[in-house]
Amino acid sequence: MARILVSNDDGIDAPGIQALAAALKAVGEVTVVAPEREQSAASHALTLHKPLRIYEGRPGQYAISGTPTDCVNMAVHQIMAEPPDLLVSGINRGANLGDDVTYSGTVSAAMEGTLLGIPSIAISQLFWQDSDYQTSAAFAATLAQTVLDNIAAGNPLPVDTLLNVNVPDLPQRLIRGTRWTTQGKRRFTKDQVIEQVDPRGRKYYWVGGSAVLWEGDPKSDHAAVTAGYISVMPVHLDLTHYGALEALSQWQIPFSSDGEPDPERS
Amino acid sequence: MARILVSNDDGIDAPGIQALAAALKAVGEVTVVAPEREQSAASHALTLHKPLRIYEGRPGQYAISGTPTDCVNMAVHQIMAEPPDLLVSGINRGANLGDDVTYSGTVSAAMEGTLLGIPSIAISQLFWQDSDYQTSAAFAATLAQTVLDNIAAGNPLPVDTLLNVNVPDLPQRLIRGTRWTTQGKRRFTKDQVIEQVDPRGRKYYWVGGSAVLWEGDPKSDHAAVTAGYISVMPVHLDLTHYGALEALSQWQIPFSSDGEPDPERS
Repeated sequence: MARILVSNDDGIDAPGIQALAAALKAVGEVTVVAPEREQSAASHALTLHKPLRIYEGRPGQYAISGTPTDCVNMAVHQIMAEPPDLLVSGINRGANLGDDVTYSGTVSAAMEGTLLGIPSIAISQLFWQDSDYQTSAAFAATLAQTVLDNIAAGNPLPVDTLLNVNVPDLPQRLIRGTRWTTQGKRRFTKDQVIEQVDPRGRKYYWVGGSAVLWEGDPKSDHAAVTAGYISVMPVHLDLTHYGALEALSQWQIPFSSDGEPDPERS
Repeated sequence: MARILVSNDDGIDAPGIQALAAALKAVGEVTVVAPEREQSAASHALTLHKPLRIYEGRPGQYAISGTPTDCVNMAVHQIMAEPPDLLVSGINRGANLGDDVTYSGTVSAAMEGTLLGIPSIAISQLFWQDSDYQTSAAFAATLAQTVLDNIAAGNPLPVDTLLNVNVPDLPQRLIRGTRWTTQGKRRFTKDQVIEQVDPRGRKYYWVGGSAVLWEGDPKSDHAAVTAGYISVMPVHLDLTHYGALEALSQWQIPFSSDGEPDPERS
């Protein structure tokens, strides 16, 4: 039976992770290791300067006093007797589209899994209505089984690549299908920081509140969910811009040194 | 005169950022906006759940009660009258090689700048000896001028791309040159989490302490600095694995729904 690690960034008591864990029990043996508290926008942060604690809760569920990345490390190196066959992070309350892949704690848990060599999926659900997580949980189980089946057939995910899933806020019967997508691009159109004054007359600032415009790429994750499709984007953790290397290497950088000349350049 | 925003993740009082700010005064008008405290491994985290404060310090220097990403937002949206022409983040004490681009607060400040449309550089110095930051600071000034010169010549950095620089721990005269590199890949070979017992007999855990092996790609950032070269890697913030889309889209994902059929697939 496949071993499946489940984590998130909304915290272990979030309804999204509990719906996910329940649905994945049809696919394998589920271990939940998640932050004790909400860690949204924690990104790929690591806790380096203080110790971490493990709190055992429901059977097979462990809360960690750290970030999503910490949870995956603790699960793989301390909690699970053998490494998981699959990691699924989510279900996040709210989308993780476009540049969100670099901020999202949900995606970061899947990044950490990927860096540790574990096939990993991040799943997020748009949340405009007062929805449940049934559509996302059902899709997560289907996709998890699909990934495991492809691994068994000798067709694993590409190296250093995770799947970032976004599910529209629709009941399953109204979902129009699944699309493999690219990372959408948004432009902020107003200030992203709000200035206020505290009760003692001192200024403070709060991040957020900006209007967002998405570029209209029809292949993007944003376009897919807007049209009622589930978006599945392959996220590559090699961030090298290979296409730019040749042109950039023509730049003259006049930095003098007396080291021996570069044999690969001379 | 070019407006240059300087940030980091080691905090505004770190010697690395002060050396960087001093060196960049030869290139443009420098504004420093940096965390009031060390934020290493903060990654691309955003502060969403509490307010931020601005503390004015030395002339042209502002400390923020938040992450590197917060600092760039505050600088661009609150502190600077006009957006900067260039952002330089660093000089980090210690390398940011390979997968570190996804954890590093230093790189994240440059990511945030890039997402806001500002040409951005992250610079880190390896630190094995009790070094100063002279080599890195001198290179940062040279590269900053090079980027600005190329922009003026109609040859800007590629869209959504920042430069991640790593400088060996060597005096400038011993540097062997500059190499444009790819993101190195490391493999951890031992546990990354250390278990301890606290004075009350309860277990706690600490992240870190693992042995690291690098894969031997000679074009990588790690290979460059090991050989005595300054590494400059173009980091692309579109993480879509374009090369995998075609093969993955052949996967059958048996998720049924009654939405209208996908016109792009039928």
